Amino acid sequence: MRHIISVTVENKFGVLARIAGLFSARGFNISSLAVGETEDPAISRMTIVVKGDDKILEQVKKQLNKLIDVILVKDYVNKDHIDRELILFKVAITQDSKDKALALLEKSIADVIKISPDDITAQIVGEQDDIDKLFNKLEEFGIKEMMRTGRIAMEL
Amino acid sequence: MRHIISVTVENKFGVLARIAGLFSARGFNISSLAVGETEDPAISRMTIVVKGDDKILEQVKKQLNKLIDVILVKDYVNKDHIDRELILFKVAITQDSKDKALALLEKSIADVIKISPDDITAQIVGEQDDIDKLFNKLEEFGIKEMMRTGRIAMEL
Repeated sequence: MRHIISVTVENKFGVLARIAGLFSARGFNISSLAVGETEDPAISRMTIVVKGDDKILEQVKKQLNKLIDVILVKDYVNKDHIDRELILFKVAITQDSKDKALALLEKSIADVIKISPDDITAQIVGEQDDIDKLFNKLEEFGIKEMMRTGRIAMEL
Repeated sequence: MRHIISVTVENKFGVLARIAGLFSARGFNISSLAVGETEDPAISRMTIVVKGDDKILEQVKKQLNKLIDVILVKDYVNKDHIDRELILFKVAITQDSKDKALALLEKSIADVIKISPDDITAQIVGEQDDIDKLFNKLEEFGIKEMMRTGRIAMEL
């Protein structure tokens, strides 16, 4: 099962490597990772999206809680929460396909940033389902480049 | 000077720890890190925001290029690019301050997600300057919680 986990840590960079190591040592596939500062610059928060065995994940969470630089571990799986991701991307276009691609983007939740002769640069922010839907539709044009932030979550 | 660097890598998790280690060993303070999959699921892209000495950064970039799992290293500092970040946050409110906080958010580039008696959950996507401006204005209310993705960038 896919889990979104946030880990609030002291802002020291060795911590990140240790936490990533804990997951990979147990065979967890980390789909995305976002690390940013919090309200307090001495504290960072990592959001990790992992897929794997739930029982083993429980063990990983217990191990995380034992690390001295870890302040809080939160799993959003059974909590009322929102999760969002930001993606910047370039859609390949030709003179012929430009209008169709543009119409599709403008009808979607994406925002067009720049139109060039060969591509359209755009951004999308949303839940995974909405993002997947748009990228399925864009497949016929082709995606030239893509930068993803990874998902972040917040309890409601 | 602050640099935004993207590193395109083979999607193996040990790579992340090694790259993070290269920066921290040279005394670079990593402000944010975002790791996500690309158009090709076997390839991941890390966006790292670092601050430090430019000459040493050149050495770090050379070392990165030598790592076998590193496909491409890109520094956006002198390139025409956009960079954006997504932040989810909760603004503390009281019965008295609610309307003022709400008006401020609605006038801004943020989107309100949920209004509760004690806080407003919202999201913002933008450039660092616009984000900083909003958070300066929100200081009088107080930020109860904040999740940041870290910045991602794309050449225009």
